[in-house]
Amino acid sequence: MAIRTALTELLGINYPILLAPMGGVAGGKLAAAVTAAGGLGIIGGGYGDQRAGYGGEAWMENEFRAAGNARIGVGYITWSLAKFPELLDQALARKPAAFVLSFGEEMLFAKKIKASGAKLICQIQDVVGAKRAAAAGADIIVAQGSEAGGHGKTARSTFALVPAVVDAVSPIPVVAAGGVADGRGLAAALMLGAAGVMIGTRFWATDEALGSANAKSLLVSAKGDDTLRTRVFDIIRELDWPEEYSGRAIANDFSRQWHGRDAALESAVARERDRYWAAAKSGDTSVAVVFAGEGLDLIGDVRPAGDIVREIADEAERRLKAYR
Amino acid sequence: MAIRTALTELLGINYPILLAPMGGVAGGKLAAAVTAAGGLGIIGGGYGDQRAGYGGEAWMENEFRAAGNARIGVGYITWSLAKFPELLDQALARKPAAFVLSFGEEMLFAKKIKASGAKLICQIQDVVGAKRAAAAGADIIVAQGSEAGGHGKTARSTFALVPAVVDAVSPIPVVAAGGVADGRGLAAALMLGAAGVMIGTRFWATDEALGSANAKSLLVSAKGDDTLRTRVFDIIRELDWPEEYSGRAIANDFSRQWHGRDAALESAVARERDRYWAAAKSGDTSVAVVFAGEGLDLIGDVRPAGDIVREIADEAERRLKAYR
Repeated sequence: MAIRTALTELLGINYPILLAPMGGVAGGKLAAAVTAAGGLGIIGGGYGDQRAGYGGEAWMENEFRAAGNARIGVGYITWSLAKFPELLDQALARKPAAFVLSFGEEMLFAKKIKASGAKLICQIQDVVGAKRAAAAGADIIVAQGSEAGGHGKTARSTFALVPAVVDAVSPIPVVAAGGVADGRGLAAALMLGAAGVMIGTRFWATDEALGSANAKSLLVSAKGDDTLRTRVFDIIRELDWPEEYSGRAIANDFSRQWHGRDAALESAVARERDRYWAAAKSGDTSVAVVFAGEGLDLIGDVRPAGDIVREIADEAERRLKAYR
Repeated sequence: MAIRTALTELLGINYPILLAPMGGVAGGKLAAAVTAAGGLGIIGGGYGDQRAGYGGEAWMENEFRAAGNARIGVGYITWSLAKFPELLDQALARKPAAFVLSFGEEMLFAKKIKASGAKLICQIQDVVGAKRAAAAGADIIVAQGSEAGGHGKTARSTFALVPAVVDAVSPIPVVAAGGVADGRGLAAALMLGAAGVMIGTRFWATDEALGSANAKSLLVSAKGDDTLRTRVFDIIRELDWPEEYSGRAIANDFSRQWHGRDAALESAVARERDRYWAAAKSGDTSVAVVFAGEGLDLIGDVRPAGDIVREIADEAERRLKAYR
């Protein structure tokens, strides 16, 4: 059976479960697996900057090929996409079912996305952002709490943000993101008024996700208490994130050395840079970043993504029905 | 009708709704109103330090009198109660239904509380704290996310913390706190595996709560985006909070001036102290702290607490039943 919501209706999917467009992690194979199981898979182009090793046009072409004919979406980091606007046209030419804009001014790209027929999904982190996305014409608004893995803001968390955003932008469907990793989270999100969930970290710990085996194994062993929101991994990678954003990652030797010492790290980038990138290349997670959300406690294995979609939907339905 | 959970069974109450023992705000009248409506009211003794203007023995005696014969609980800040251990004996002599320990080593007082017949409720902020509370013999564990108003920790948020704590301490009933302000929150908490909720800010914006009319009026007009976690109000009040704790409050002129400049404020306390306490006395919320959680967006009025208990329970039940 399927849980029907405004999100499943609008996107024509069986389960109100979206794959978070994790840059360089949510590739074509993972996106296709989530779609095949009844959710919507979304490829993560991230910065769209070839220097990142993913997200450029050749990488995206390759990932769309890996997805086969699956009906999928695509997502980019808005402030970075603004530097590579040709990537938007190239992505839309592939007729994605949806386009996710996260972290920046949606208005820049909203019209073109909507004109293409793709649903415009805007991910925001506070109520003021939700109102801005609604004004830009968002078809779907993702309310992302600070417990989410990877980038976002620190200020608001999923539990109170979701109903506040629902009240602010109704009747636009709202999707809960941040801390959702099992069927309890989906059921809770629906009770908060969300029309579905966007899930990142749980889908990284899958067979189909890109990323190193070391990283996936750390996702299984680490716990939510081990994560922190920090800017150190952006500073060392010399990424121009606007200052209101930070990223939730698993604490490691590098974050323990530098977190809370942003200015000192900025002065040390030239000295520390090579060590960082060598670790990233070799999969040394004691130095290289592994972004992950607080939902880590709920992740106990690496499995096929389709199994996870079905289990989450089944568990949510079972919990909701228990109150009949 | 009533929502039956392990919490309602254990405490013998109709609705799985606990009043957060907000220091100096949750007095006898508010506690009695929450209990009369079917939840459990809990008086907040806070620091137990007479210099705070509340929480000492005379204040507590007075508040128990204001509660009449209502079946209520009492709560203190654990690390501060350790300085005034006689308050524990005095509180237990009044035969409270429950005793809430927050922020510190539960083991110090657990045995005495349990021996008195009061249920031991321990409020924690991370999974490691939950395990410590379980080992101390907690009858009920409150998992408090960072969206909560007042003191707590920044690291973990309600949405992912609650199921992680449930998995860690089962079968001890877990109560969700932080960001719960309406029936959507109660329904969501139950879906996450909680046996109920503890609610603070929403119960401050009631007729029965202590605190200034200015503060209550600010709770109605301010929004979740306007809150922040900060230490500045502890520094200026010269409170010895362990460094892992901060408090969520509504941003005001004072926090805008000092937040992020802890060391500078510490040096300025002698100069700023009088201005702060004058503002606190006159109810000037541009300087004096108004602690509040992220659930502010869901609070639109000041009303009788009993109405709020019933509305939250009714709305939760309606939402849960919509999935029949």
